[in-house]
Amino acid sequence: MSGLFITFEGGDGSGKSTQAELLADWLVASGHTVVRSREPGGTELGVELREIVLHRRGHIAPRAEALIYAADRAHNIATKVRPAIERGDIVIQDRYLDSSVAYQGAGRVLDAKEVRDLSLWATEGFMPHLTILLDLDETIGRERLDDARTRYDRLEAEKDDFHARVRAGYLSLAADEPDRFLVLSATDSIESISAAIRARVEALLVR
Amino acid sequence: MSGLFITFEGGDGSGKSTQAELLADWLVASGHTVVRSREPGGTELGVELREIVLHRRGHIAPRAEALIYAADRAHNIATKVRPAIERGDIVIQDRYLDSSVAYQGAGRVLDAKEVRDLSLWATEGFMPHLTILLDLDETIGRERLDDARTRYDRLEAEKDDFHARVRAGYLSLAADEPDRFLVLSATDSIESISAAIRARVEALLVR
Repeated sequence: MSGLFITFEGGDGSGKSTQAELLADWLVASGHTVVRSREPGGTELGVELREIVLHRRGHIAPRAEALIYAADRAHNIATKVRPAIERGDIVIQDRYLDSSVAYQGAGRVLDAKEVRDLSLWATEGFMPHLTILLDLDETIGRERLDDARTRYDRLEAEKDDFHARVRAGYLSLAADEPDRFLVLSATDSIESISAAIRARVEALLVR
Repeated sequence: MSGLFITFEGGDGSGKSTQAELLADWLVASGHTVVRSREPGGTELGVELREIVLHRRGHIAPRAEALIYAADRAHNIATKVRPAIERGDIVIQDRYLDSSVAYQGAGRVLDAKEVRDLSLWATEGFMPHLTILLDLDETIGRERLDDARTRYDRLEAEKDDFHARVRAGYLSLAADEPDRFLVLSATDSIESISAAIRARVEALLVR
Protein backbone atom coordinates (compact mmCIF):
# COMPACT_ATOMS: atom_id res chain seq x y z
CA MET A 1 0.00 0.00 0.00
CA SER A 2 1.24 3.46 -0.84
CA GLY A 3 -0.21 6.87 -0.17
CA LEU A 4 -1.18 9.87 -2.26
CA PHE A 5 0.80 13.01 -2.99
CA ILE A 6 -1.48 15.96 -3.76
CA THR A 7 -0.09 19.41 -4.56
CA PHE A 8 -1.85 22.79 -4.75
CA GLU A 9 -0.67 25.37 -7.24
CA GLY A 10 -1.76 28.87 -8.20
CA GLY A 11 -0.91 32.53 -7.97
CA ASP A 12 -1.06 34.72 -4.90
CA GLY A 13 -4.55 35.09 -3.46
CA SER A 14 -5.96 32.07 -5.30
CA GLY A 15 -7.13 30.35 -2.12
CA LYS A 16 -4.65 27.44 -2.01
CA SER A 17 -4.33 27.45 1.76
CA THR A 18 -8.09 27.50 2.34
CA GLN A 19 -8.69 24.62 -0.04
CA ALA A 20 -5.77 22.57 1.28
CA GLU A 21 -7.17 22.97 4.78
CA LEU A 22 -10.70 21.91 3.74
CA LEU A 23 -9.37 18.87 1.88
CA ALA A 24 -7.18 17.84 4.82
CA ASP A 25 -10.10 18.18 7.26
CA TRP A 26 -12.33 16.05 5.05
CA LEU A 27 -9.70 13.34 4.62
CA VAL A 28 -8.95 13.19 8.34
CA ALA A 29 -12.68 12.98 9.07
CA SER A 30 -12.79 10.05 6.60
CA GLY A 31 -10.13 8.23 8.62
CA HIS A 32 -7.00 8.98 6.57
CA THR A 33 -3.63 10.03 7.94
CA VAL A 34 -2.75 13.39 6.39
CA VAL A 35 0.66 15.07 6.33
CA ARG A 36 0.77 18.76 5.40
CA SER A 37 3.77 20.30 3.75
CA ARG A 38 4.72 23.37 1.74
CA GLU A 39 7.54 24.59 -0.46
CA PRO A 40 9.61 26.39 0.35
CA GLY A 41 9.68 25.68 4.09
CA GLY A 42 8.15 22.24 4.67
CA THR A 43 11.03 21.10 6.89
CA GLU A 44 13.22 22.74 9.54
CA LEU A 45 16.03 23.15 7.01
CA GLY A 46 13.45 24.42 4.55
CA VAL A 47 12.26 27.12 6.93
CA GLU A 48 15.81 28.53 6.98
CA LEU A 49 16.05 28.37 3.18
CA ARG A 50 12.58 29.93 2.84
CA GLU A 51 13.64 32.88 4.96
CA ILE A 52 16.66 33.43 2.71
CA VAL A 53 14.86 33.07 -0.59
CA LEU A 54 11.69 34.99 0.23
CA HIS A 55 12.64 37.59 2.81
CA ARG A 56 16.33 38.31 2.43
CA ARG A 57 17.27 41.86 1.49
CA GLY A 58 19.41 42.38 -1.57
CA HIS A 59 19.75 40.74 -4.97
CA ILE A 60 19.97 36.95 -5.34
CA ALA A 61 21.39 35.71 -8.65
CA PRO A 62 18.60 33.91 -10.61
CA ARG A 63 20.40 30.54 -10.73
CA ALA A 64 21.21 30.74 -7.02
CA GLU A 65 17.53 31.38 -6.30
CA ALA A 66 16.46 28.38 -8.39
CA LEU A 67 19.05 26.19 -6.65
CA ILE A 68 17.88 27.21 -3.17
CA TYR A 69 14.30 26.27 -4.08
CA ALA A 70 15.61 22.96 -5.43
CA ALA A 71 17.59 22.31 -2.22
CA ASP A 72 14.48 22.93 -0.12
CA ARG A 73 12.57 20.55 -2.41
CA ALA A 74 15.20 17.82 -2.29
CA HIS A 75 15.20 17.82 1.51
CA ASN A 76 11.39 18.00 1.78
CA ILE A 77 10.83 15.05 -0.54
CA ALA A 78 13.67 12.88 0.83
CA THR A 79 13.00 13.36 4.52
CA LYS A 80 9.27 14.14 4.79
CA VAL A 81 7.11 13.41 1.74
CA ARG A 82 8.58 10.17 0.39
CA PRO A 83 8.63 8.47 3.81
CA ALA A 84 5.01 9.53 4.42
CA ILE A 85 3.86 8.18 1.04
CA GLU A 86 5.67 4.91 1.73
CA ARG A 87 3.81 4.65 5.05
CA GLY A 88 0.55 4.99 3.11
CA ASP A 89 -0.26 8.55 4.26
CA ILE A 90 -1.78 11.30 2.15
CA VAL A 91 0.50 14.31 1.70
CA ILE A 92 -1.16 17.63 0.89
CA GLN A 93 1.38 20.20 -0.12
CA ASP A 94 1.27 23.92 -0.91
CA ARG A 95 3.40 24.37 -4.10
CA TYR A 96 5.79 21.94 -5.79
CA LEU A 97 7.90 21.83 -8.94
CA ASP A 98 5.21 23.42 -11.09
CA SER A 99 5.69 26.58 -9.02
CA SER A 100 9.38 26.61 -9.88
CA VAL A 101 8.72 26.13 -13.57
CA ALA A 102 5.98 28.77 -13.63
CA TYR A 103 7.74 31.35 -11.43
CA GLN A 104 11.41 30.79 -12.20
CA GLY A 105 11.00 29.57 -15.75
CA ALA A 106 8.11 31.48 -17.27
CA GLY A 107 8.40 34.42 -14.92
CA ARG A 108 12.14 34.98 -14.77
CA VAL A 109 15.10 34.65 -17.09
CA LEU A 110 15.80 30.92 -16.80
CA ASP A 111 14.90 28.19 -19.26
CA ALA A 112 11.72 26.39 -18.14
CA LYS A 113 12.98 22.94 -19.14
CA GLU A 114 16.25 23.43 -17.25
CA VAL A 115 14.35 24.49 -14.12
CA ARG A 116 12.14 21.41 -14.41
CA ASP A 117 15.16 19.13 -14.91
CA LEU A 118 16.73 20.64 -11.80
CA SER A 119 13.66 19.74 -9.74
CA LEU A 120 13.57 16.26 -11.19
CA TRP A 121 17.23 15.73 -10.22
CA ALA A 122 16.54 17.13 -6.74
CA THR A 123 13.66 14.72 -6.13
CA GLU A 124 14.81 11.73 -8.20
CA GLY A 125 11.77 12.29 -10.40
CA PHE A 126 9.18 12.23 -7.62
CA MET A 127 5.83 13.41 -9.07
CA PRO A 128 2.43 14.17 -7.50
CA HIS A 129 -0.52 11.88 -8.12
CA LEU A 130 -2.73 14.97 -8.41
CA THR A 131 -2.03 18.69 -8.81
CA ILE A 132 -4.85 21.14 -8.20
CA LEU A 133 -4.34 24.43 -10.04
CA LEU A 134 -6.49 27.29 -8.75
CA ASP A 135 -6.49 29.53 -11.78
CA LEU A 136 -7.02 33.24 -11.25
CA ASP A 137 -6.70 36.43 -13.28
CA GLU A 138 -3.55 37.97 -11.83
CA THR A 139 -5.15 41.37 -11.26
CA ILE A 140 -7.87 39.80 -9.08
CA GLY A 141 -5.25 37.88 -7.09
CA ARG A 142 -3.41 41.11 -6.44
CA GLU A 143 -6.56 42.86 -5.18
CA ARG A 144 -7.27 39.99 -2.78
CA LEU A 145 -3.71 40.23 -1.44
CA ASP A 146 -3.89 44.00 -1.07
CA ASP A 147 -6.93 43.56 1.15
CA ALA A 148 -5.26 40.90 3.31
CA ARG A 149 -1.65 41.95 3.80
CA THR A 150 0.62 44.82 4.52
CA ARG A 151 3.93 43.06 3.85
CA TYR A 152 4.83 41.34 0.55
CA ASP A 153 7.57 38.77 0.03
CA ARG A 154 10.03 38.99 -2.88
CA LEU A 155 7.76 37.28 -5.41
CA GLU A 156 4.51 38.91 -4.35
CA ALA A 157 6.13 42.29 -4.88
CA GLU A 158 6.75 41.66 -8.59
CA LYS A 159 4.73 43.62 -11.14
CA ASP A 160 1.49 42.47 -12.79
CA ASP A 161 3.14 41.43 -16.08
CA PHE A 162 5.30 39.00 -14.11
CA HIS A 163 2.21 37.45 -12.55
CA ALA A 164 0.52 37.28 -15.97
CA ARG A 165 3.48 35.24 -17.26
CA VAL A 166 3.28 32.97 -14.21
CA ARG A 167 -0.40 32.32 -14.89
CA ALA A 168 0.27 31.53 -18.54
CA GLY A 169 3.09 29.20 -17.47
CA TYR A 170 0.77 27.31 -15.12
CA LEU A 171 -1.93 26.88 -17.77
CA SER A 172 0.64 25.59 -20.23
CA LEU A 173 1.89 23.02 -17.70
CA ALA A 174 -1.67 21.86 -17.04
CA ALA A 175 -2.32 21.50 -20.77
CA ASP A 176 0.81 19.33 -21.09
CA GLU A 177 -0.29 16.92 -18.34
CA PRO A 178 -4.11 16.86 -18.27
CA ASP A 179 -4.24 13.60 -16.28
CA ARG A 180 -2.20 14.99 -13.40
CA PHE A 181 -3.83 18.43 -13.23
CA LEU A 182 -7.26 19.48 -12.02
CA VAL A 183 -7.74 23.11 -13.10
CA LEU A 184 -10.42 25.06 -11.26
CA SER A 185 -11.42 28.69 -11.47
CA ALA A 186 -10.44 30.40 -8.23
CA THR A 187 -13.34 32.84 -8.63
CA ASP A 188 -15.92 30.09 -8.00
CA SER A 189 -17.32 29.74 -4.48
CA ILE A 190 -15.17 28.10 -1.84
CA GLU A 191 -17.73 25.32 -1.42
CA SER A 192 -18.03 24.64 -5.14
CA ILE A 193 -14.24 24.41 -5.53
CA SER A 194 -13.95 22.23 -2.46
CA ALA A 195 -16.63 19.83 -3.75
CA ALA A 196 -14.85 19.48 -7.10
CA ILE A 197 -11.58 18.68 -5.32
CA ARG A 198 -13.23 16.10 -3.05
CA ALA A 199 -14.82 14.37 -6.05
CA ARG A 200 -11.46 14.04 -7.80
CA VAL A 201 -9.61 12.84 -4.70
CA GLU A 202 -12.38 10.35 -3.93
CA ALA A 203 -11.91 8.83 -7.39
CA LEU A 204 -8.18 8.45 -6.69
CA LEU A 205 -8.84 6.78 -3.33
CA VAL A 206 -11.16 4.21 -4.83
CA ARG A 207 -8.59 3.09 -7.42
CA MET B 1 41.57 42.75 -21.18
CA SER B 2 40.31 40.13 -18.81
CA GLY B 3 41.62 38.83 -15.51
CA LEU B 4 42.61 35.47 -14.11
CA PHE B 5 40.58 33.04 -12.01
CA ILE B 6 42.81 30.85 -9.84
CA THR B 7 41.38 28.23 -7.50
CA PHE B 8 43.01 26.27 -4.67
CA GLU B 9 41.92 22.71 -3.97
CA GLY B 10 42.97 20.04 -1.52
CA GLY B 11 41.98 18.17 1.59
CA ASP B 12 41.86 19.50 5.12
CA GLY B 13 45.22 20.65 6.46
CA SER B 14 46.85 20.82 3.02
CA GLY B 15 47.87 24.47 3.42
CA LYS B 16 45.48 26.06 0.90
CA SER B 17 44.91 29.20 2.98
CA THR B 18 48.61 29.81 3.56
CA GLN B 19 49.47 29.44 -0.11
CA ALA B 20 46.52 31.55 -1.28
CA GLU B 21 47.67 34.30 1.08
CA LEU B 22 51.29 34.15 -0.15
CA LEU B 23 50.20 34.23 -3.80
CA ALA B 24 47.86 37.18 -3.18
CA ASP B 25 50.57 39.14 -1.35
CA TRP B 26 53.02 38.57 -4.20
CA LEU B 27 50.50 39.59 -6.88
CA VAL B 28 49.51 42.74 -4.99
CA ALA B 29 53.20 43.64 -4.54
CA SER B 30 53.58 43.20 -8.31
CA GLY B 31 50.85 45.78 -8.91
CA HIS B 32 47.83 43.53 -9.60
CA THR B 33 44.36 43.96 -8.18
CA VAL B 34 43.49 40.78 -6.31
CA VAL B 35 40.03 39.66 -5.17
CA ARG B 36 39.87 36.83 -2.61
CA SER B 37 36.91 34.50 -2.43
CA ARG B 38 36.00 31.10 -1.04
CA GLU B 39 33.31 28.47 -1.41
CA PRO B 40 31.13 28.08 0.39
CA GLY B 41 30.81 31.57 1.85
CA GLY B 42 32.41 34.02 -0.59
CA THR B 43 29.41 36.37 -0.51
CA GLU B 44 27.00 37.60 2.17
CA LEU B 45 24.37 35.16 0.92
CA GLY B 46 27.07 32.51 0.80
CA VAL B 47 27.98 33.03 4.45
CA GLU B 48 24.38 32.17 5.40
CA LEU B 49 24.42 29.08 3.17
CA ARG B 50 27.85 28.06 4.51
CA GLU B 51 26.54 28.16 8.05
CA ILE B 52 23.66 25.87 7.07
CA VAL B 53 25.70 23.38 5.09
CA LEU B 54 28.76 23.13 7.35
CA HIS B 55 27.52 23.80 10.85
CA ARG B 56 23.84 22.96 11.01
CA ARG B 57 22.84 20.17 13.39
CA GLY B 58 20.90 17.27 11.97
CA HIS B 59 20.82 15.33 8.72
CA ILE B 60 20.77 17.10 5.36
CA ALA B 61 19.63 14.99 2.39
CA PRO B 62 22.60 14.46 0.00
CA ARG B 63 20.94 16.14 -2.98
CA ALA B 64 19.86 19.09 -0.82
CA GLU B 65 23.46 19.48 0.35
CA ALA B 66 24.79 19.44 -3.22
CA LEU B 67 22.16 22.00 -4.26
CA ILE B 68 23.06 24.37 -1.40
CA TYR B 69 26.72 24.28 -2.45
CA ALA B 70 25.63 24.93 -6.04
CA ALA B 71 23.48 27.89 -4.95
CA ASP B 72 26.42 29.41 -3.08
CA ARG B 73 28.55 28.89 -6.19
CA ALA B 74 26.02 30.41 -8.57
CA HIS B 75 25.76 33.57 -6.48
CA ASN B 76 29.53 33.83 -5.91
CA ILE B 77 30.33 33.56 -9.62
CA ALA B 78 27.50 35.79 -10.87
CA THR B 79 27.90 38.63 -8.38
CA LYS B 80 31.57 38.57 -7.34
CA VAL B 81 33.95 36.50 -9.48
CA ARG B 82 32.70 37.11 -13.01
CA PRO B 83 32.46 40.91 -12.55
CA ALA B 84 36.02 40.97 -11.10
CA ILE B 85 37.42 38.94 -14.00
CA GLU B 86 35.67 41.27 -16.47
CA ARG B 87 37.33 44.26 -14.75
CA GLY B 88 40.72 42.58 -15.31
CA ASP B 89 41.29 41.59 -11.66
CA ILE B 90 42.88 38.37 -10.44
CA VAL B 91 40.53 36.23 -8.34
CA ILE B 92 42.13 33.78 -5.90
CA GLN B 93 39.58 31.42 -4.47
CA ASP B 94 39.61 28.72 -1.82
CA ARG B 95 37.69 25.73 -3.34
CA TYR B 96 35.49 25.57 -6.43
CA LEU B 97 33.60 22.94 -8.41
CA ASP B 98 36.39 20.35 -8.08
CA SER B 99 35.66 20.31 -4.34
CA SER B 100 32.03 19.45 -5.03
CA VAL B 101 32.96 16.67 -7.42
CA ALA B 102 35.62 15.27 -5.08
CA TYR B 103 33.63 15.60 -1.84
CA GLN B 104 30.04 15.13 -2.98
CA GLY B 105 30.71 12.85 -5.91
CA ALA B 106 33.65 10.63 -5.00
CA GLY B 107 33.09 10.93 -1.25
CA ARG B 108 29.32 10.61 -0.96
CA VAL B 109 26.53 8.78 -2.70
CA LEU B 110 25.95 11.06 -5.69
CA ASP B 111 27.11 10.55 -9.25
CA ALA B 112 30.26 12.62 -9.91
CA LYS B 113 29.20 13.64 -13.42
CA GLU B 114 25.80 14.83 -12.19
CA VAL B 115 27.44 16.90 -9.46
CA ARG B 116 29.76 18.46 -12.03
CA ASP B 117 26.87 19.19 -14.42
CA LEU B 118 25.03 20.88 -11.55
CA SER B 119 27.98 23.21 -10.97
CA LEU B 120 28.31 23.93 -14.67
CA TRP B 121 24.62 24.88 -14.81
CA ALA B 122 24.99 27.03 -11.68
CA THR B 123 27.91 29.00 -13.16
CA GLU B 124 27.02 28.88 -16.86
CA GLY B 125 30.18 26.85 -17.41
CA PHE B 126 32.58 29.30 -15.76
CA MET B 127 35.97 27.56 -15.35
CA PRO B 128 39.23 28.58 -13.63
CA HIS B 129 42.29 29.45 -15.68
CA LEU B 130 44.39 27.57 -13.14
CA THR B 131 43.61 25.16 -10.32
CA ILE B 132 46.30 24.42 -7.74
CA LEU B 133 45.80 21.06 -6.05
CA LEU B 134 47.76 20.62 -2.83
CA ASP B 135 47.90 16.86 -2.63
CA LEU B 136 48.27 15.27 0.77
CA ASP B 137 48.00 11.81 2.29
CA GLU B 138 44.71 12.03 4.18
CA THR B 139 46.15 10.69 7.44
CA ILE B 140 48.77 13.47 7.49
CA GLY B 141 46.09 16.09 6.82
CA ARG B 142 44.10 14.74 9.73
CA GLU B 143 47.11 14.96 12.08
CA ARG B 144 47.71 18.57 11.05
CA LEU B 145 44.07 19.41 11.76
CA ASP B 146 44.09 17.63 15.11
CA ASP B 147 46.96 19.84 16.16
CA ALA B 148 45.25 23.05 15.05
CA ARG B 149 41.57 22.74 15.94
CA THR B 150 39.17 21.66 18.58
CA ARG B 151 35.97 21.93 16.54
CA TYR B 152 35.37 20.12 13.24
CA ASP B 153 32.77 21.01 10.63
CA ARG B 154 30.50 18.40 9.04
CA LEU B 155 33.00 17.32 6.40
CA GLU B 156 36.11 17.41 8.55
CA ALA B 157 34.43 15.05 10.98
CA GLU B 158 34.07 12.30 8.36
CA LYS B 159 36.19 9.16 8.73
CA ASP B 160 39.56 8.54 7.06
CA ASP B 161 38.19 6.33 4.27
CA PHE B 162 35.98 9.22 3.19
CA HIS B 163 39.01 11.50 2.96
CA ALA B 164 40.93 8.81 1.05
CA ARG B 165 38.12 8.74 -1.55
CA VAL B 166 38.20 12.54 -1.74
CA ARG B 167 41.95 12.49 -2.42
CA ALA B 168 41.53 9.86 -5.14
CA GLY B 169 38.74 11.95 -6.66
CA TYR B 170 40.94 15.04 -6.79
CA LEU B 171 43.83 13.17 -8.43
CA SER B 172 41.47 11.73 -11.02
CA LEU B 173 40.15 15.23 -11.84
CA ALA B 174 43.70 16.55 -12.21
CA ALA B 175 44.60 13.68 -14.53
CA ASP B 176 41.57 14.49 -16.70
CA GLU B 177 42.58 18.16 -17.12
CA PRO B 178 46.38 18.38 -16.89
CA ASP B 179 46.49 21.84 -18.51
CA ARG B 180 44.21 23.40 -15.89
CA PHE B 181 45.71 21.68 -12.83
CA LEU B 182 49.01 22.25 -11.07
CA VAL B 183 49.44 19.37 -8.62
CA LEU B 184 51.94 19.93 -5.80
CA SER B 185 52.83 17.78 -2.84
CA ALA B 186 51.59 19.50 0.30
CA THR B 187 54.43 17.93 2.31
CA ASP B 188 57.03 20.05 0.50
CA SER B 189 58.21 23.22 2.25
CA ILE B 190 55.93 26.26 2.21
CA GLU B 191 58.56 28.26 0.27
CA SER B 192 59.11 25.53 -2.32
CA ILE B 193 55.35 25.20 -2.95
CA SER B 194 54.96 28.95 -3.10
CA ALA B 195 57.77 29.31 -5.65
CA ALA B 196 56.23 26.64 -7.89
CA ILE B 197 52.88 28.43 -7.78
CA ARG B 198 54.46 31.81 -8.58
CA ALA B 199 56.30 30.35 -11.57
CA ARG B 200 53.09 28.93 -13.02
CA VAL B 201 51.07 32.10 -12.42
CA GLU B 202 53.86 34.23 -13.90
CA ALA B 203 53.67 32.16 -17.10
CA LEU B 204 49.91 32.81 -17.26
CA LEU B 205 50.38 36.55 -16.76
CA VAL B 206 52.92 36.82 -19.59
CA ARG B 207 50.61 35.16 -22.12
